Amino acid sequence: MNVRILGIDPGTVVLGYGIIELKDTLPRLVELNVLHLQSLPSQQEKLREIFLRVQELIEHHQPTALSIEAPFYGKNAQSMHKLGRAQGVAIAAAILMGLEIHEFSPKTIKKAVTGNGNASKEQVAGMLESLLAFNFNTRHFDATDALAAALCLANQLSTPDKIQGPASSWKKFARQHPDRML
Amino acid sequence: MNVRILGIDPGTVVLGYGIIELKDTLPRLVELNVLHLQSLPSQQEKLREIFLRVQELIEHHQPTALSIEAPFYGKNAQSMHKLGRAQGVAIAAAILMGLEIHEFSPKTIKKAVTGNGNASKEQVAGMLESLLAFNFNTRHFDATDALAAALCLANQLSTPDKIQGPASSWKKFARQHPDRML
Repeated sequence: MNVRILGIDPGTVVLGYGIIELKDTLPRLVELNVLHLQSLPSQQEKLREIFLRVQELIEHHQPTALSIEAPFYGKNAQSMHKLGRAQGVAIAAAILMGLEIHEFSPKTIKKAVTGNGNASKEQVAGMLESLLAFNFNTRHFDATDALAAALCLANQLSTPDKIQGPASSWKKFARQHPDRML
Repeated sequence: MNVRILGIDPGTVVLGYGIIELKDTLPRLVELNVLHLQSLPSQQEKLREIFLRVQELIEHHQPTALSIEAPFYGKNAQSMHKLGRAQGVAIAAAILMGLEIHEFSPKTIKKAVTGNGNASKEQVAGMLESLLAFNFNTRHFDATDALAAALCLANQLSTPDKIQGPASSWKKFARQHPDRML
């Protein structure tokens, strides 16, 4: 059976998400989108919307795992609190639907996708286009960041032995599948 | 019909809660307790537990509103993120059960209960015992803080005109009901 992974980058203005499918460890893009929340009048309605839409996504696409970017704690307390609320709601929705939850640091995700833990959002998005052989019409970084988190987990699942690191694994993948590189 | 209010003080170690009932604007204690989360192995299992137990509480006691303390942003980013996750889950659980959500600053809550926005947790707990004519066996401040949030909302509901502030309203209440003062 093919494994599906949901990646989410939750915020209270925009929530980005990406879903990939692993077929024989080869990742394929299923969906990539953002959910706009700015028109909702209160934070509570935003949280409600996040919960319902995450459950809807899971029901529709049947992923078995949620991958999420663990925050970088350098941000200020108020924005971390807002982020925490949005993440908490997305995580609760996924847990209640039986998904496994995985969290990765921003550095780990960037490294897994591009081989460079300090890559820019543009570099991550560009590499995702190559790896998934898909030309994203609009590069919405909330969505590509979410997709990167999903791919980071996919990478970990397809290379369970830790001798070969994630970055080298993608490089190897790219070498083996030149047809999927743009 | 009597109105019930659920107050929650959510954390990922202990979640305190208090439920009061308003009968002709007179508050009565329904339940006061804490939920221990420290034995759960992961933050995710704690979030799941918070969601399920908050829904259970609501199902059992049928409150129509949730009152919660809005955080004081002086804390560090990491603890605000953790608090945000726990709060987000509790709020989502309540919203999905149809409750109205109200948030108050720590100062507003303390002022509503004791008349002093800088009151200590001990003073808040002591005043709650007087107001609710109930002797709390153990003063668990996570629970009494939650109860104080519930009482703050109750106070606001019973004094809809803003000319008379919350603190003076409790003082008036105390004068009118000397039998309920210990």
